[in-house]
Amino acid sequence: MSVFKTTVSELAERFGLAFHGDGARVIDGVGTLAGAGPSQLSFLSNSKYASQLGDTRAGVVVMREEQVADSPVPALVARDPYVAYAKIAALFERLPAAPAGIHPSAVVAAGARVAPTASIGPGCVIDESAVIEDGAVLGPHCIIGPECTVGAQSRLVARVTLVIRVTLGKRVLAHPGAVIGSDGFGLAFDRDQWIKLPQLGGVRIGDDCEIGANTTIDRGALDDTVLEEDVRLDNQIQIAHNVHIGAHTALAGCAAVAGSAKIGRYCMIGGNAGVLGHLEVADRVTITAKSLVTHSIREPGEYSSGVPLQENRQWRRNAARFKHLDEYARRLSALEKDSNND
Amino acid sequence: MSVFKTTVSELAERFGLAFHGDGARVIDGVGTLAGAGPSQLSFLSNSKYASQLGDTRAGVVVMREEQVADSPVPALVARDPYVAYAKIAALFERLPAAPAGIHPSAVVAAGARVAPTASIGPGCVIDESAVIEDGAVLGPHCIIGPECTVGAQSRLVARVTLVIRVTLGKRVLAHPGAVIGSDGFGLAFDRDQWIKLPQLGGVRIGDDCEIGANTTIDRGALDDTVLEEDVRLDNQIQIAHNVHIGAHTALAGCAAVAGSAKIGRYCMIGGNAGVLGHLEVADRVTITAKSLVTHSIREPGEYSSGVPLQENRQWRRNAARFKHLDEYARRLSALEKDSNND
Amino acid sequence: MSVFKTTVSELAERFGLAFHGDGARVIDGVGTLAGAGPSQLSFLSNSKYASQLGDTRAGVVVMREEQVADSPVPALVARDPYVAYAKIAALFERLPAAPAGIHPSAVVAAGARVAPTASIGPGCVIDESAVIEDGAVLGPHCIIGPECTVGAQSRLVARVTLVIRVTLGKRVLAHPGAVIGSDGFGLAFDRDQWIKLPQLGGVRIGDDCEIGANTTIDRGALDDTVLEEDVRLDNQIQIAHNVHIGAHTALAGCAAVAGSAKIGRYCMIGGNAGVLGHLEVADRVTITAKSLVTHSIREPGEYSSGVPLQENRQWRRNAARFKHLDEYARRLSALEKDSNND
Repeated sequence: MSVFKTTVSELAERFGLAFHGDGARVIDGVGTLAGAGPSQLSFLSNSKYASQLGDTRAGVVVMREEQVADSPVPALVARDPYVAYAKIAALFERLPAAPAGIHPSAVVAAGARVAPTASIGPGCVIDESAVIEDGAVLGPHCIIGPECTVGAQSRLVARVTLVIRVTLGKRVLAHPGAVIGSDGFGLAFDRDQWIKLPQLGGVRIGDDCEIGANTTIDRGALDDTVLEEDVRLDNQIQIAHNVHIGAHTALAGCAAVAGSAKIGRYCMIGGNAGVLGHLEVADRVTITAKSLVTHSIREPGEYSSGVPLQENRQWRRNAARFKHLDEYARRLSALEKDSNND
Repeated sequence: MSVFKTTVSELAERFGLAFHGDGARVIDGVGTLAGAGPSQLSFLSNSKYASQLGDTRAGVVVMREEQVADSPVPALVARDPYVAYAKIAALFERLPAAPAGIHPSAVVAAGARVAPTASIGPGCVIDESAVIEDGAVLGPHCIIGPECTVGAQSRLVARVTLVIRVTLGKRVLAHPGAVIGSDGFGLAFDRDQWIKLPQLGGVRIGDDCEIGANTTIDRGALDDTVLEEDVRLDNQIQIAHNVHIGAHTALAGCAAVAGSAKIGRYCMIGGNAGVLGHLEVADRVTITAKSLVTHSIREPGEYSSGVPLQENRQWRRNAARFKHLDEYARRLSALEKDSNND
Repeated sequence: MSVFKTTVSELAERFGLAFHGDGARVIDGVGTLAGAGPSQLSFLSNSKYASQLGDTRAGVVVMREEQVADSPVPALVARDPYVAYAKIAALFERLPAAPAGIHPSAVVAAGARVAPTASIGPGCVIDESAVIEDGAVLGPHCIIGPECTVGAQSRLVARVTLVIRVTLGKRVLAHPGAVIGSDGFGLAFDRDQWIKLPQLGGVRIGDDCEIGANTTIDRGALDDTVLEEDVRLDNQIQIAHNVHIGAHTALAGCAAVAGSAKIGRYCMIGGNAGVLGHLEVADRVTITAKSLVTHSIREPGEYSSGVPLQENRQWRRNAARFKHLDEYARRLSALEKDSNND
């Protein structure tokens, strides 16, 4: 596999960064401060790792101006070294080749509109009413159902299923096992059995969204389930029908959002956190890991639920007391009253 | 795609409902109260939306008798408008076509018994000892392993895997990515390593069950894992080996049930709730979202665990105190004793 | 399907166990104490089931020496009956046939190195830089991406995806829907949008690991995500980038480990438990179900978080009080001070 090579000064120019030290140094990869070799670029962003700078063997390190004096190796100076590193590192990523055209083992219906520049991998199945736009890449075994559109330059890594009435914007990235447009969980109880409500809506995913491995996004019951642009979903997330997620919001692994909840823009939802149905969460809200949002949140800020981890023997004693917390509060108030009456 | 058309009076007759207003009004779809147009049917069930009735432009609205006086548009009268709506809306659902027969790209072993009326989609793989009954529909990429049966009129939307010894009843609906009959997690620790217990049982799924996207159901170690009829599983649910779930029970997204637990009939298990292994849960029990069932439940009712969501700064203070709850209870009792001795 | 037959005395000799009763008894299967018939072997390990021994109709039961006197049927004596049963039961497992060679519907790139003794099932897709070692079995629809290796005797049951730079050791067992080597969730926020960090590392899975159905394991950002040997993952587990899990550790269903966390050897992580990023967990730590590990754990032992399940009405009262726990603790201290001042 061919390797991309550049120099420190070329990187400085390309990304508009100042540099210190040997600008002619050749760089052909990236690595951690501890692991990078003399032809690799590293970065120092989290001050927790500052002590590793003195020993690094990296060819160049992206850092803040104030760290340059401590660096034993060439430095690229950035206001936000993590962001600068992210942009530079992308140069060194080698994505699997995805030649334009349709693999002979794919099953593409005659009516499907597939751009000539799109790449359709082995075993893909594409419905006759589906649209695959310019430069989209479908890895092996993707299934694109009726009335679905894959936007330009989107990439479905492998085994992604769009069930029905799903529209992906441009540059959407979906990872293996993701299911988008599955039936919402809509049921009515009729005497002695469940009746299923037909799920007649769709899913609209904005530009630049990312959908993690084995994440599921149900289509709406009547209106659509919506992710605005640049929403980032990690793995194994569950988005129920008619959820609406604002732009630039990120959800960490195993989070779940129940039906018709509306989450604002620039939110951060922690791992395995949950949001109950029909609630609203304001813009710029952070929910910490494993918390459950049980009421609407109107103000930006950080919110949490849960109790701390303890050694099991201690925890059992405390947890048993929780069952009597209301009683304790009443007894405390009674004592205070007694005390005041003394 | 052809559109189904009917009239208000035809709907009234078909579903045994009274109507008010223009019975000749043509209806060709459904929508929300806020969004439906003059040829669409809507419904009013949740009183939270009653204020939207006055402004609706729907062609007809399903509602309770007492709401008719407030309706600016034709009304269909139902005791339970949500159930009536569910039944009517099904008329307007257009499922993807599923022609009888086996797609040429499917790999069906010579010994497999596939009913001529069944539909086997692209890329399906069917074992020689599998049985696919009348009218069953297998979407793309389903895998049907040894000794598995797909009951009549069942529908596996796409990419559903039945591993081994799985029997689906009639009219079972399984969504993409579901895995049924995978190995139970059975391990014995032998000196310095894990020994795997062979999982020799199967899975039996009753008639009219629904299995959500990316849900997993393990087969039994010796006896079978069982879902009785009309059990409804949302997405990303985990059912461990030898679990038994009673008829008409519904589990919301990301719930999990550990090995050999037995859940009754007509239960409702909330999103991301858990049930520990070997427990029993009685009929008609509701578990709220994210709760953990740590002991058997003998009485019907609603059960919960967890603590409320708070702004993080407040929550941290309270959570820190939880670690000393047992101590506080003792100190409270000591104070009361002092107080009584005064 | 052919049935394996043996006798009680043959089993005793093969596994080095003493036996009591009829050694010539023919055994052709296994079952529970309650369900096994006269040609089946059962076991008694959990004393909870001791009362079933008197009524068993099993052909032979594996048990501890002290239980032999109570047994109405032949007995095989083991120090650890569960381990002995696990080993014996494996004789009666009939795995689906997996003939060596490549199924004609598989898409194997010309450069891929596939051992002649390996079995490649229908619809598999194998990259040109992939390696499949001796005796490995790939069930239907597995996808093996660039720079991936499947170790000797490993078995990918069906529909397992190795995305890129994944190495599986020997005898690894992966269940349907597992995704290994997907992108880690690495993002940097740049003014008004997320920038993706390329995920340039891989995943290394040790010998004898097991990966559950629909489990996801992300590849590292720079270094690799690592599972040492004999790590056992149940279904729907999420392992983020750069996690390191020590040998012989087991995680139950729906557990999740955030980025760069390091978990020791011989740990047991309960169902739906979580470990936050960048933490360290010592060897021989047990985390109970649904707990969240929020700080590093330095000592072996059992750890928990959460509050007990209660009937909802009681729980609501207690949970509401939790929001004032810090205030109660202060009021309690104030009362004590008053009391001491009296």
